[in-house]
Amino acid sequence: MPELRKDPVIGRWVIISAERGKRPMDFPHKTEKLRGGFCPFCPGHEKKTPPEVLSYPAIPGDSTSEWSVRVVPNKFPALIIEGDLQRKGIGLYDMMTGIGAHEVVIDTPDHGKSLADYDESHISNVLEAYQSRLRDLSHDKRFRYILIFKNQGEEAGASLEHSHTQLIATPIIPKRVIEELEGAASHFEIKERCIYCDIIDQERFDGRRLIFENDDFVAISPFAARFPFETWILPKRHESHFHKMEPAQRLQLASLLKVILRKLNLALDNPAYNFVIHTAPINDRKDWYFHWHIELMPKLTQVAGFEWGSGFYINPTPPEEAAGYLRNLKLD
Amino acid sequence: MPELRKDPVIGRWVIISAERGKRPMDFPHKTEKLRGGFCPFCPGHEKKTPPEVLSYPAIPGDSTSEWSVRVVPNKFPALIIEGDLQRKGIGLYDMMTGIGAHEVVIDTPDHGKSLADYDESHISNVLEAYQSRLRDLSHDKRFRYILIFKNQGEEAGASLEHSHTQLIATPIIPKRVIEELEGAASHFEIKERCIYCDIIDQERFDGRRLIFENDDFVAISPFAARFPFETWILPKRHESHFHKMEPAQRLQLASLLKVILRKLNLALDNPAYNFVIHTAPINDRKDWYFHWHIELMPKLTQVAGFEWGSGFYINPTPPEEAAGYLRNLKLD
Repeated sequence: MPELRKDPVIGRWVIISAERGKRPMDFPHKTEKLRGGFCPFCPGHEKKTPPEVLSYPAIPGDSTSEWSVRVVPNKFPALIIEGDLQRKGIGLYDMMTGIGAHEVVIDTPDHGKSLADYDESHISNVLEAYQSRLRDLSHDKRFRYILIFKNQGEEAGASLEHSHTQLIATPIIPKRVIEELEGAASHFEIKERCIYCDIIDQERFDGRRLIFENDDFVAISPFAARFPFETWILPKRHESHFHKMEPAQRLQLASLLKVILRKLNLALDNPAYNFVIHTAPINDRKDWYFHWHIELMPKLTQVAGFEWGSGFYINPTPPEEAAGYLRNLKLD
Repeated sequence: MPELRKDPVIGRWVIISAERGKRPMDFPHKTEKLRGGFCPFCPGHEKKTPPEVLSYPAIPGDSTSEWSVRVVPNKFPALIIEGDLQRKGIGLYDMMTGIGAHEVVIDTPDHGKSLADYDESHISNVLEAYQSRLRDLSHDKRFRYILIFKNQGEEAGASLEHSHTQLIATPIIPKRVIEELEGAASHFEIKERCIYCDIIDQERFDGRRLIFENDDFVAISPFAARFPFETWILPKRHESHFHKMEPAQRLQLASLLKVILRKLNLALDNPAYNFVIHTAPINDRKDWYFHWHIELMPKLTQVAGFEWGSGFYINPTPPEEAAGYLRNLKLD
């Protein structure tokens, strides 16, 4: 019997269709080969990107050494940094000038590598770059939100194959973030507890949707997962803002992220994936009841379209099965 | 300068990124070839589907003639029709048994044809089949909503290439529908007018986003379109429920749908697409302020993933350009 399950934060129902049950080997996908051609993100081609806004040297403290992580403005930005934020009504409609920032974190100088291949300290440096840019951009009073996301692999929408992460600062708060903030606020009003802290407690106690945990972080298959092998990573200690994560905790996140990505790569034959960092809005808002986390979605099914049109998802892999499979997978 | 635009009904902001401006020829896509193999939807294979729940004969009134439209239960249903609707809490979480209906409208006996190839009276018959099933299923008191959608082409998620439409009856109202109902209700409270009627008025007066209209229907590129060439089709006369459309109006819709699909096929080289019928919930609810419509989304860009994670969309084709292009396209 299939089940209908409700996301406890934003109230979205999904169909978990065990009858169509899919195991990892049931998802056919093209193994991506390196596409080759000129890469503007490779060392030696630094002049092909706009001037960098941040760079970490390969040898810490030695700025003459090669870079290991590099942040540059996007050459084809979706939003533009220069100009005034102007609001306008057109009859019924509202619009704003497209003011914002659009940056690219080049995760590595090595064209063939992806996040899962780096050692923990390098992953931690990448995360530190995210935090640093978030902190810096949050001083710009025109911005209300900074969205950090990674498209890994062509099927997940990456237009360049050299591993990178994108950061978009917007003068609005994305709808999904507002929904999560409202869901968390309404739970807090009734219970005087954080809903994500409650989720972590229940998942660690229950265990069926738990994939992996270490001292500071936990990785779960969410109860109302929209996609097969969708994975959420949450800090155990309540914190609303990603950029406030401390160095020791960051290393723990790097370590857990590496485990999760390696498990997904092993289970699903190096799938394309997206992740999005869900953090509270920047600036003065009092969103301490929010709990930052990462949502990671392997791109396994061609289910787009009707889901966009309806907000309704059918997931052929029960999250308990996905979590059980990943939990029991041995890494060498 | 890019623009941020807000959907007036559900409040979602999108980036309209004219700098990345895309014209129809900029969307590379694989032309779909017939995949071949055994097709359970073709005439002569009727035993390979569950017994039909509705069928229209090719010669009206002559039930001994071949079928021209046929509706069958989905052989691999996402929701199951038999059983009681049971609600359950699991700690923090809510779930329900997966009770519902999942049917397939086989649009045509002709394997190689798609909706755009039929004549108007056949398209009207297909629409009538949707209405008839909607009406019938709405007598089942366990159901709250009936979702009708089409995935055309492999890239849009169609698992069988023989043209068909799906219908899912659910014991919940999908999130996106709730958002539209709330948006329409809140506009009505303030203005005492239907927001979709206001949109139609403004678009017909403005003209820049108007693609095509006839006596009873209008096709527009929505102001805050999420996708290139996204198209909405709305009845000019206010009506909340799709299944209440009358035969004369249905023929008008069939005629407009054919024009729009032919224009999209010509402009975008037979793109894969999805459409979703947005209609008010069935049964006793008083949703007369809602205005049913069809949202049609050609599948041109590989932008899934971060959009799912954030609810935030970047559209490289301004809706004015898409509408202008389609409006001026001559059909022979």
